[in-house]
Amino acid sequence: MTDIQSDGEGTRTPLELYKKVSAQGNQVRVLKTEKADKADVEAAVQLLLKLKMEYKAVTGEDYKPGCPPGDNCVLQEDPPSANNEEDFVDPWTVSSNSATGVDYDKLIVRFGSNKIDQELVDRIEKAIGQKAHRFLRRGIFFSHRDMHQVLDAYENKKSFYLYTGRGPSSEAMHLGHLIPFIFTKWLQDVFDVPLVIQLTDDEKYLWKDLTLEECHHYAVENAKDIIACGFDVNKTFIFSDLDYLGSSPGFYSNIVKIQKHVTFNQVKGIFGFTDSDSIGKISFPAIQAAPSFSTSFPQIFKGRKDVHCLIPCAIDQDPYFRMTRDVAPRIGFPKPALLHSTFFPALQGAQTKMSASDPNSSIFLTDSAKQIKDKVNKYAFSGGKDTIEEHRKYGGNPDVDVSFMYLTFFLEDDDQLEKIRQDYTSGALLTGELKKYLIETLQPLILAHQEKRNEITDEIVKEFMTPRPLDFSY
Amino acid sequence: MTDIQSDGEGTRTPLELYKKVSAQGNQVRVLKTEKADKADVEAAVQLLLKLKMEYKAVTGEDYKPGCPPGDNCVLQEDPPSANNEEDFVDPWTVSSNSATGVDYDKLIVRFGSNKIDQELVDRIEKAIGQKAHRFLRRGIFFSHRDMHQVLDAYENKKSFYLYTGRGPSSEAMHLGHLIPFIFTKWLQDVFDVPLVIQLTDDEKYLWKDLTLEECHHYAVENAKDIIACGFDVNKTFIFSDLDYLGSSPGFYSNIVKIQKHVTFNQVKGIFGFTDSDSIGKISFPAIQAAPSFSTSFPQIFKGRKDVHCLIPCAIDQDPYFRMTRDVAPRIGFPKPALLHSTFFPALQGAQTKMSASDPNSSIFLTDSAKQIKDKVNKYAFSGGKDTIEEHRKYGGNPDVDVSFMYLTFFLEDDDQLEKIRQDYTSGALLTGELKKYLIETLQPLILAHQEKRNEITDEIVKEFMTPRPLDFSY
Repeated sequence: MTDIQSDGEGTRTPLELYKKVSAQGNQVRVLKTEKADKADVEAAVQLLLKLKMEYKAVTGEDYKPGCPPGDNCVLQEDPPSANNEEDFVDPWTVSSNSATGVDYDKLIVRFGSNKIDQELVDRIEKAIGQKAHRFLRRGIFFSHRDMHQVLDAYENKKSFYLYTGRGPSSEAMHLGHLIPFIFTKWLQDVFDVPLVIQLTDDEKYLWKDLTLEECHHYAVENAKDIIACGFDVNKTFIFSDLDYLGSSPGFYSNIVKIQKHVTFNQVKGIFGFTDSDSIGKISFPAIQAAPSFSTSFPQIFKGRKDVHCLIPCAIDQDPYFRMTRDVAPRIGFPKPALLHSTFFPALQGAQTKMSASDPNSSIFLTDSAKQIKDKVNKYAFSGGKDTIEEHRKYGGNPDVDVSFMYLTFFLEDDDQLEKIRQDYTSGALLTGELKKYLIETLQPLILAHQEKRNEITDEIVKEFMTPRPLDFSY
Repeated sequence: MTDIQSDGEGTRTPLELYKKVSAQGNQVRVLKTEKADKADVEAAVQLLLKLKMEYKAVTGEDYKPGCPPGDNCVLQEDPPSANNEEDFVDPWTVSSNSATGVDYDKLIVRFGSNKIDQELVDRIEKAIGQKAHRFLRRGIFFSHRDMHQVLDAYENKKSFYLYTGRGPSSEAMHLGHLIPFIFTKWLQDVFDVPLVIQLTDDEKYLWKDLTLEECHHYAVENAKDIIACGFDVNKTFIFSDLDYLGSSPGFYSNIVKIQKHVTFNQVKGIFGFTDSDSIGKISFPAIQAAPSFSTSFPQIFKGRKDVHCLIPCAIDQDPYFRMTRDVAPRIGFPKPALLHSTFFPALQGAQTKMSASDPNSSIFLTDSAKQIKDKVNKYAFSGGKDTIEEHRKYGGNPDVDVSFMYLTFFLEDDDQLEKIRQDYTSGALLTGELKKYLIETLQPLILAHQEKRNEITDEIVKEFMTPRPLDFSY
């Protein structure tokens, strides 16, 4: 805000500010279309973010394109077909026309969240007394809402809890599905907080051509892969909606409260529902929202309604939680905070999320060492040149190279990753050698996961999935 | 159908039939507008009903005004303001411009249900081996869906279960609220079948300016009045949605199944919801529908999904069950059968249902003998003449006299009721004397209810409201 005021323009009216944000948004678009210098684009985006923050501070509302202050517009995402130049991100569709994937800075602007900058990473490291997770260091978790407030409270010895989830649409989970769980496990360890994990088997039943029994079965199977990430049973409650909604009056109470305070107009605006959608889809967002409130888990929080919630998730889930944050104060709960991750790219490139239904689009958690090797060698989109000679001469492009992207997610050693990046860019490292690094990183990781998963018995799953107190006192 | 074929016109195409039903509907309207002879109107209505049955037999679908066969129209009620000449009936509004109240024959036509005729009453008496309840004998339960199928099954030793309910919007229940419960208690006794009673505290929270806690409290208080009707604890399960939905995965599974198979378009057509309604209201119909399916109560029916359900309720609840019957075959359940009652008139007259919020609109279950006497004498709309002389000379009109209507509901003796009707019509019986009959009928009835209710302890309520097996084996 200081920066803007130093422009010498003083305080603006909401409408002036609205026009300013709008103009700056256009400026960012022009720069990106013209493929302007990266630093220039970033500066323009930063100014846009600041203007939006000022807009919010003055009007008390998020800036909404096409909706001047005072107008009672509904928050509306662009439909997928509206503008082919734009990325499209909602809980069911993610698409981008760029080989580097979705433009996450733009997404921050559009969703009205905040960038995870170095200052926030430093603050987290200070709070937990250790190095931040590579997902934070490398911008894989890139956006947040209210993380500073979570840290304020944490530094004042006020605890919070973690909430994440998964929609169990098949038995097959791939590497990308692990990202939120790997990160959540780390958050649980460093902050020592309770964790609830929602498996939305009801959602999958409503959206897919599956039976309730199939969806519930996938929930239990997926729970095994989640547990194999190393969660502590004394601090973690995993639940299937189909089980838990029917066994917790506290959860249902919160769902009804949310459902009373959200209209069809609102979910139409946020999720793009139409009159032809089932009433199940239309009311489902309340079910994903409810675990953000601690009274949904009386067995854990003993009826306390003021325990803050932090939700690590991929950015495509944000619409649910924008709705949740909108409702929260009206029904007497704190707004959940969020940490958003980028998408894990498909082997074929970063244009889309991976598909669980295409076995060649990703590395699955059940793949053998040989399958991993074959898939990486055959399908991983390469940023290298066509011939060895050209590659040696001009170097490769790590920004579009899927093997390098995967290493960013899974290679722990920052120095080694940086050396690989430099060598690949210079041409010293060939695509085959880069792929070899990835194969050697993934094979032991997947094998270790499989070994851990094999040890997860039905009894262990049942323990995690039984509503019970956790090792915290409230 | 025989009658129609004896017209000599033979089999008609669906469109011909549609036009015939449409024309006959107009004919009925003309006769009613012209206040034609009652017998003529009734004959016209009967022909209309038969034509509608033939239409359904030929097309497999209910006749829908303005929706010719093959058109994929959504079932649409007239909105309240569409035609001031018409009665309006939906679960939230009942209004009529006639002092005799809603035109129930017309409602049967509009809702596409069937009249409870003497033949059906006779068949019920034969099946149970005793006289039919006065509510059946006197046309208070006047309409049904599939009651003949229930009796077919019953005669073949195939059991069914009863389902009724109440929306607990206040502690105060009045006489009218007892009608479905008095009748359901009788049905349970004569057929010896299990009964489930739903208290839709979640619905009241969604529709009214009440807290969840208030709605749940009203549910428990109302349960006491319901239990006081004499239900057998070994055959009856009473549940609050807020409690039971959160303690029965079987119930939630059925709700999600229904919600997947009903669109917003459909509930918009049936219930008149708009885009500004909460997603809670929009999805609620599935919650009232679900108890129609026996797997919602695994503790009672042990997972059997083929136990038929019979729902006694006031006709304004029919929209919920039209929706339920539409969904049932698509999710593998039998359609529930229904018995519909007329509305219990307000003291001020039969134009509207009573209001729990207007203490002078009805006799409450908590009223003292003196209050009953005063209310009847002061507020009960009279069909008598202005002076005793005129009354003696011209007689009174029992059809619009609320005291007489109430006696129809509560005076058991048919002969005495008929004598009162004749004497009042002739003028031999004065309004004050008629009111005295009513007061003397209601005072002991209400007192007995209050005595029974006083005996209902919290423990007894808890027993009724605990999910458990009933005294039937499945």
